[in-house]
Amino acid sequence: MAASGDIEALIEMMARLPGLGPRSARRAVLHLIRKRARLLQPLAEQMAAVAATARECINCGNIGTAELCEICTDSRRASGQICVVEEVADLWAMERAGVFKGRYHVLGGTLSALDAVGPEDLRIPRLIDRLGEEAVSEVILALNATVDGQTTAHYLADEIGARAEVTSLAQGVPVGGELDYLDDGTISAALKARKKV
Amino acid sequence: MAASGDIEALIEMMARLPGLGPRSARRAVLHLIRKRARLLQPLAEQMAAVAATARECINCGNIGTAELCEICTDSRRASGQICVVEEVADLWAMERAGVFKGRYHVLGGTLSALDAVGPEDLRIPRLIDRLGEEAVSEVILALNATVDGQTTAHYLADEIGARAEVTSLAQGVPVGGELDYLDDGTISAALKARKKV
Ligand SMILES: [Zn+2]
Ligand SMILES: [Zn+2]
Repeated sequence: MAASGDIEALIEMMARLPGLGPRSARRAVLHLIRKRARLLQPLAEQMAAVAATARECINCGNIGTAELCEICTDSRRASGQICVVEEVADLWAMERAGVFKGRYHVLGGTLSALDAVGPEDLRIPRLIDRLGEEAVSEVILALNATVDGQTTAHYLADEIGARAEVTSLAQGVPVGGELDYLDDGTISAALKARKKV
Repeated sequence: MAASGDIEALIEMMARLPGLGPRSARRAVLHLIRKRARLLQPLAEQMAAVAATARECINCGNIGTAELCEICTDSRRASGQICVVEEVADLWAMERAGVFKGRYHVLGGTLSALDAVGPEDLRIPRLIDRLGEEAVSEVILALNATVDGQTTAHYLADEIGARAEVTSLAQGVPVGGELDYLDDGTISAALKARKKV
C-alpha cells in the first residue's frame, strides 16, 4: 500500500472521475491534503451541499436545486422557443455563449439503434407535452453532429414539425477554426451552407 | 450563470485541482451529480474524513493519519536504510515499485538558489538527526534528475557522507525526468543498480 487506507480510498474514488486517471488523482489528492484546511475541507462541504440539493428539473432535465430549474421558473425566458440539447453540459455551453434567451430541453442522450435507446428512454415524451403547455413556436435542435445526434434530430423534426417550427444550429467552420484541423464532414457542410459575402 | 450557485462553486473548486481545467471540472461534476447517491455523497464523506485525519509524519514527512506514519512505526522497515525523496508523490512511486524495504525521508522540495530555498526550508535538519537516532548505514538519494534535484543530492552527499554511505538511484532515470512519471520497472531497475556517490 502506497498511502494509508483512507487516502488510498480517496485516490481511487477520484481516479474514477472523467478526465482524471490514477496519476492525476494522486497529484490532486496530495495537493488537497497539503492545503487541507483551505481546500480539502471546503471541497468536502461543497460536495456534500450539492449532493444534498442537486436534482433534475422535472420540466426540462436541467440540473438545479429545486423541482423546477432557474430557467424554467424565469418568466422572461418564456419566449416560445425551446432549445433541445443532449446533455446538461451542452445546456451550460449554450448558456456560456449567452445568446439564447429561451428555455431548454435536455434529452439525456440520443436515439441509438446500436445501444437500443428509443424515444421512451429519452426525455422526448415530456418535450412533446411542453409544446402545448408552453405555447412553443420554435424548437431549436442543438444536437451533436454525430450519426446518433443527427438521427435523433430527424426523428424529432418528424414528430414535432406539424406543431412548431423546427430549426437546427448551422453547421460550419468554428470561429477561429483552421481549415487544416477540420474534418472533411465539417468542411463539406460549411461549403454546402456557404453564403454570399 | 450556467449552473446554480452551489454547483458553479463546486465546479470552480474542482477546476483549480492539478490536472483538471474548467471543462473537465464541469464534466466531472455532472458525472458526480448524475450519480450523487453512489458517487458524490461518498466522495464528500471520504474527503471530509481525510481532511480531518491526514497529517504529515513528524519523523519523515510522509502523509498518514497519526503523528508517525505507517512506515516509521513498522519495525520491519528499520533496515538502516533511508531513501530520500523530494515529495510524498515520489515516496508513493517508490512504494508502488515495491522493492525498497527501508524507510523514507521527504524533503518537501529541493534546494534552489533561484527560489531562495535553503537547507532550513527543507526537512534536512531532521534528516541529519535521524542518522544517529535510527542507526542509519545507508542514505539512498532518490531525487529528480533535474538541476535542482542534483544540486540537492550533492549538498546532501557532502553533509552526510562522513556519517553514512550515500548512494543514489542509478542513471536510468531519464535526464530531466521526474520519478512520479516513471513506470514501476524503471524505478525498480534504477534502485537495484544504485551507486555510491
Ligand atoms: Zn428546467
Ligand atoms: Zn514517517
